[in-house]
Amino acid sequence: RMEKKIAVLAGDGIGPEVMAEAIKVLKVVEKEFGIAMAFEEADVGGCAIDKHGHALPEKTLDVCRQSDAILFGSVGGPKWESLPPEQQPERAALLPLRKIFDLFCNLRPARVYSALASASPLRPDIVGDGFDILCLRELAGGIYFGQPKGREGTGPKERAYDTMVYHRWEIQRIARKAFEIARTRRKKVTSIDKANVLTSMVLWREVVVEMARDYPDVTLNHMYVDNATMQLMRDPHQFDVLLCGNMFGDILSDQCAMLTGSLGLLPSASLGASDFGLYEPAGGSAPDIAGQGIANPIAQILSAALMLRHSFHREDAASAVERAVAETIEAGLRTADIARGAQRPVSTTAMGDAIAERV
Amino acid sequence: RMEKKIAVLAGDGIGPEVMAEAIKVLKVVEKEFGIAMAFEEADVGGCAIDKHGHALPEKTLDVCRQSDAILFGSVGGPKWESLPPEQQPERAALLPLRKIFDLFCNLRPARVYSALASASPLRPDIVGDGFDILCLRELAGGIYFGQPKGREGTGPKERAYDTMVYHRWEIQRIARKAFEIARTRRKKVTSIDKANVLTSMVLWREVVVEMARDYPDVTLNHMYVDNATMQLMRDPHQFDVLLCGNMFGDILSDQCAMLTGSLGLLPSASLGASDFGLYEPAGGSAPDIAGQGIANPIAQILSAALMLRHSFHREDAASAVERAVAETIEAGLRTADIARGAQRPVSTTAMGDAIAERV
Ligand SMILES: CC(C)[C@H](C(=O)O)[C@@H](O)C(=O)O
Ligand SMILES: CC(C)[C@H](C(=O)O)[C@@H](O)C(=O)O
Repeated sequence: RMEKKIAVLAGDGIGPEVMAEAIKVLKVVEKEFGIAMAFEEADVGGCAIDKHGHALPEKTLDVCRQSDAILFGSVGGPKWESLPPEQQPERAALLPLRKIFDLFCNLRPARVYSALASASPLRPDIVGDGFDILCLRELAGGIYFGQPKGREGTGPKERAYDTMVYHRWEIQRIARKAFEIARTRRKKVTSIDKANVLTSMVLWREVVVEMARDYPDVTLNHMYVDNATMQLMRDPHQFDVLLCGNMFGDILSDQCAMLTGSLGLLPSASLGASDFGLYEPAGGSAPDIAGQGIANPIAQILSAALMLRHSFHREDAASAVERAVAETIEAGLRTADIARGAQRPVSTTAMGDAIAERV
Repeated sequence: RMEKKIAVLAGDGIGPEVMAEAIKVLKVVEKEFGIAMAFEEADVGGCAIDKHGHALPEKTLDVCRQSDAILFGSVGGPKWESLPPEQQPERAALLPLRKIFDLFCNLRPARVYSALASASPLRPDIVGDGFDILCLRELAGGIYFGQPKGREGTGPKERAYDTMVYHRWEIQRIARKAFEIARTRRKKVTSIDKANVLTSMVLWREVVVEMARDYPDVTLNHMYVDNATMQLMRDPHQFDVLLCGNMFGDILSDQCAMLTGSLGLLPSASLGASDFGLYEPAGGSAPDIAGQGIANPIAQILSAALMLRHSFHREDAASAVERAVAETIEAGLRTADIARGAQRPVSTTAMGDAIAERV
């Protein structure tokens, strides 16, 4: 079958608005690059809770199962914040999707566009011309999914616990991805752990060292997670590929994203062993600005580019979209989140149009 | 007994050099404030491994047991890095000390001196006149000490695990400290968790909310750890007291420290239920500059001030030392780590003398 099926899970908040722009761009790609795509929408997150009683309805899962990739918007908002933790839209939608499709490899590029370097919260002399870090997070294991987890006892002795666990094979497959990707970049992997305290992280380091033997052309460093949080601010240029377990990757990928100062620009890809993947913006559903037509669609559009690259293996189309985004930024177009000083912000759709035009 | 006994554990690297300056300052305090102090030195860390075969010899523990407080320098260095993780100086000295003396409350002030605001890696408009965050880290529980932890199986299925566990009473006692301390400051507690994913953190949030009822004058917020790492860089001024579990506190306290840009200035206190406490600089043993007489003694001196405050209840003497440090910085004295541009750095001892003089 030549046609690519895409499950479109726009979700809540700004999700639907920015998703519309990503699809607009993909329709241009369809024509320009001859990639036939079929889009199937499905409910996810808070709106799915409201309509179907669950953040990830069975019907949505079916749509995903029949697709080649999931284009995900964002979920959640104040409306659902009082739900118990395990029913909240983000957790109840994202965690099962990652697990069911065994999406163990989360790619979070954190790169600074030189025209937007001043948006970084870091001092200009530290940012320099900008940096380009790829945060690779193990996404299907670790303390998020480790068993047992539970709660027992009563009174002051009541206790609650989670298990941080890694199997050798889980570390092997994410480490392999890190080294492979580093080869296409600056050939440097920094593996993040806490091997001085955690037994699971001792195994982590051991396996990463073993895997590195297959990649003599790639430089491997190890860094404790507490030190990493400092080094990222002191000198982000020292990093190329960050290799992290699930929880440390959760923390550090967000730190990397904020370091760029342009959270609204950052895409992410969650990949498994096959070509199937889930693609979503790094930022959240931003309910405070939803429905105003001012959200930045770039992260969603760049997520679509990652889909073209990783699920459809169309580097040509992926680069064309990324180039179109870079040119649009260089041309001075800014949505409100990245507009500065005298720059007049453009709307979500105007930004989408400008990018689509340049593809 | 009126005399205060202090276990002096200078350790490795710059430890002995900066410790000498802290003791110099304490000897002035002894005279000026009439606080009799007896100093007993004991080996710890790498030098203790070399001499006695263990980073925390029984004799050192005895000295600590007979003291009112531990003044700790810093431990570790390249010489001992090839040891197995559980024998490394930092881990093998600090973790048992925390556990044996049940030092569950780690105080890490991260404050910016306005004269040094430009040292922060953050943009000047974000730093403003400086910020003042107190990071409170639970230090005797959580995933660092949780049982079971281990390793089992062979081949690809080999697995290693740690347990993140909190008891209600452990959360109660650290939360109480946070609210009490917030009352002496800007009355704001931000509790850090990952309650959307971790069962232990659901209990954490629940107990913190319960404890807050006793402190209606203190504002309580909750923040996910991944978001906290972003908010700290976006706007550090929004924080007063950060309340964290052991691992999240490890990560965020280091991030806070680096945010100030002056790691060499930051002290820490590790407290238990009694007046006994362990006081140490936030930074490490800096083996690269050890023995050169250029290390910054301020973190060690301010750690001594925290000892005067928390173990000896001598607010007068503690403030006098802190004021002396602030005045010395305002007077323009700089060790190499904080000297900028045309400033000529002074030596470790010159800095210690200048502060001692001002007490
Ligand atoms: C919502 C939450 C479960 C999720 C995570 O922690 O993985 C989110 O923070 C993310 O990073 O995608
Ligand atoms: C050395 C290590 C065990 C220790 C920790 O993680 O607690 C250190 O990083 C610290 O923060 O004091």
